[in-house]
Amino acid sequence: MKMYDLINKKKNKESLTANEIEFIIQGYTNGSVPDYQMSAFLMAVCLNGMNHEETAALTIAMANSGDILDLSQIKGAKVDKHSTGGVGDKTSLVLSPMVASLGIPVAKMSGRGLGHTGGTIDKLESFPGFSTTITTEQFVSNVNKVKMAIVGQTANLAPADKKIYALRDVTATIDNISLIASSIMSKKIASGADVIVLDVKTGSGAFMKTLEESLALANEMVQIGTIAGKQTYAVITDMNQPLGNAVGNTLEVIEAIDTLNGDGPKDLLEVSITLASYMLVGAGIATSVEEAAKMLYKTIEDKSALNKMAEFIRAQGGNSDPVYHTELFQKASIVEEVAAPSDGYITFIHTDEVGMTSLVLGGGRETKESVIDLSVGLKIHKKLGDSVIKGEALATLYANDSNKLAEAKKRFLDAYVIGSQKLEKPKYVYAIVTKDGIQQL
Amino acid sequence: MKMYDLINKKKNKESLTANEIEFIIQGYTNGSVPDYQMSAFLMAVCLNGMNHEETAALTIAMANSGDILDLSQIKGAKVDKHSTGGVGDKTSLVLSPMVASLGIPVAKMSGRGLGHTGGTIDKLESFPGFSTTITTEQFVSNVNKVKMAIVGQTANLAPADKKIYALRDVTATIDNISLIASSIMSKKIASGADVIVLDVKTGSGAFMKTLEESLALANEMVQIGTIAGKQTYAVITDMNQPLGNAVGNTLEVIEAIDTLNGDGPKDLLEVSITLASYMLVGAGIATSVEEAAKMLYKTIEDKSALNKMAEFIRAQGGNSDPVYHTELFQKASIVEEVAAPSDGYITFIHTDEVGMTSLVLGGGRETKESVIDLSVGLKIHKKLGDSVIKGEALATLYANDSNKLAEAKKRFLDAYVIGSQKLEKPKYVYAIVTKDGIQQL
Repeated sequence: MKMYDLINKKKNKESLTANEIEFIIQGYTNGSVPDYQMSAFLMAVCLNGMNHEETAALTIAMANSGDILDLSQIKGAKVDKHSTGGVGDKTSLVLSPMVASLGIPVAKMSGRGLGHTGGTIDKLESFPGFSTTITTEQFVSNVNKVKMAIVGQTANLAPADKKIYALRDVTATIDNISLIASSIMSKKIASGADVIVLDVKTGSGAFMKTLEESLALANEMVQIGTIAGKQTYAVITDMNQPLGNAVGNTLEVIEAIDTLNGDGPKDLLEVSITLASYMLVGAGIATSVEEAAKMLYKTIEDKSALNKMAEFIRAQGGNSDPVYHTELFQKASIVEEVAAPSDGYITFIHTDEVGMTSLVLGGGRETKESVIDLSVGLKIHKKLGDSVIKGEALATLYANDSNKLAEAKKRFLDAYVIGSQKLEKPKYVYAIVTKDGIQQL
Repeated sequence: MKMYDLINKKKNKESLTANEIEFIIQGYTNGSVPDYQMSAFLMAVCLNGMNHEETAALTIAMANSGDILDLSQIKGAKVDKHSTGGVGDKTSLVLSPMVASLGIPVAKMSGRGLGHTGGTIDKLESFPGFSTTITTEQFVSNVNKVKMAIVGQTANLAPADKKIYALRDVTATIDNISLIASSIMSKKIASGADVIVLDVKTGSGAFMKTLEESLALANEMVQIGTIAGKQTYAVITDMNQPLGNAVGNTLEVIEAIDTLNGDGPKDLLEVSITLASYMLVGAGIATSVEEAAKMLYKTIEDKSALNKMAEFIRAQGGNSDPVYHTELFQKASIVEEVAAPSDGYITFIHTDEVGMTSLVLGGGRETKESVIDLSVGLKIHKKLGDSVIKGEALATLYANDSNKLAEAKKRFLDAYVIGSQKLEKPKYVYAIVTKDGIQQL
């Protein structure tokens, strides 16, 4: 087999076999296929596409390029959830303790934040002493005991994906559905879960700006998961505005705890319950999403999800007191409101710019090496369709530096568009994608 | 300007400006654009194409990447001819002395043969003492005095083309009309001629196998030449069988001399006259190709072309006696006929395999480093449409090694298809392409 011939096949719109794709991925990982051949191949894929079978083969080959997490010592069906990334997205913090409190093992491998979206591990480090650098043995043991554990991504998970992503980043070969889907799914498959629920965000703060693109990506990922033998569901959720009201690490943890206490924002609760319902159905604990939702609401009413959160924090070395007394979390030193510059209705939110507001306050990373300030961020008080009077607070900013605050304020005001027309509020959930098809809501 | 954005533009089917293309070529030549970005760009060009303006800009940028031959000291319009390569193609040896004998300067930069096609320089080295390693001053002085000189390609002619060609060769990005046309034309433009006549071969022994592809390539090259300010003509000629009868370096020189003596094969003479006619029209020496053809035939009748050949050989250090006594050329030691295996008609010739027959006898190069044997080769006696009787000679092979002869014989027989149906003989010339359009003949 020669890489030249495989590039040529894809250039001529032919399909590649699983063996051929494995040859490419192994060759690129071990260096026998050089960058310049791989980038020509990736461009041919971008322009001529890949079918579902090719995309699945690519994903599996990338998953097999490094370690595959062995979760066989965990009892029961392992469930995992993955979000394509959004602003104020703290569903992992809400749904994981809910699902775990029902006895379903949540073995999560999570990342840190980069750019305008936050990372679950950063947020959890708001709990003093909490650590995600635990061994695989501890991880497995915690999941068996507590039913919930979260670790940082190990270095050698799908190294082919890492290398290919870096090349795509400099050769204008990012925006292809097969390449995006396989990149996400290769890591999920290597993470070892049996049930994968994908939260595909759509809108101004998401990677996929339109519902059509989001559906295509969701469908591709569900096909891949299915071919790889995983029960896979995708939920298309709104990202035309932040999810919930809090943006910033500790602020988001507090909002998640409020939600587990029954005092959270409606959109965050509904999206979390929807995602978690599919985790329950996939694990075989509920026979319908309606039944699953009822079980999940009960974990809030009886505080079992809140208690599970505290138990999980303690199991990974953290102080769980702030779960019950959120005033114990470290606070930002400057708290200031942003006033509406005019009367009207919120007609558009540049959601990624709201994420950037938190980032410039120090709450996000510009590069992988950036050190972040967990206490800063913002709470928004007005969302799409809300009416607003000049001088009324649009949001409250939490800062530790007055210069950064000034820049953040400006950035935030630029993110909000106030118009004269009252628009309908966006849906929380647009569609569900399963192996049997798309169900628009 | 960033290479990333330019790759992205071409991926999105947008046109690039001349400045943007120059940025790419300069960057790739000086190393600031890495191979992996260039190969992604080349794949995008293969799949999304380039328009005539982009292709011309690419050609000019590649021509400007190295030395541009300064022929300003040569009086009159400089004419050049380029062939896309074929088997038995010795038109340069026939038409150059014809054109030069009419006072038109022929300043030719020529290559050596590689693979199954021969090179003019190799052929000319059949004359003892003949050399093409002369300085630019000698070259210019010879053209002014003799009206004809031929040099080997200098090292720094269109280095961008050389580097890009090497990359295309390993990334399956060879077969794109814009890339093929710009590669040929960049070297022609850097060679400094005012009038360029292109001999675009079509058929089983040509790079372009169909008339349609050949016309597309010819049209692209004529457009490039026109945009670059060169008078450019393309002639589509047949390569479904060798041109003339001789294949092999010295054998081809002898056939060219026979033609200048009025004793050459009809196809070689007609193709040479057609190409040369456009050189004359382009140089403004004749007002029509008919007038030009008459002038050219006269150079054969009065032996002025033959005498010009001898003068040219002497001017570059060679012994010109063999021009008048071809029996003085060095001869192969073994001469053997290949007998027809059956009765019938020649219905197809795998022309590149006839070229390979000469190569395996030692007359061609497998790699750039191969040393070639000038005296070996073959003379074919049967061409397409000819009838043949079993045992009759299809060709005569000239060899210096009996093992190579045996292999060549087998190869030659495989190249000839004898069938029961008499087919029409192919045309010599199919079409003329000028800046005003295509004239099919």
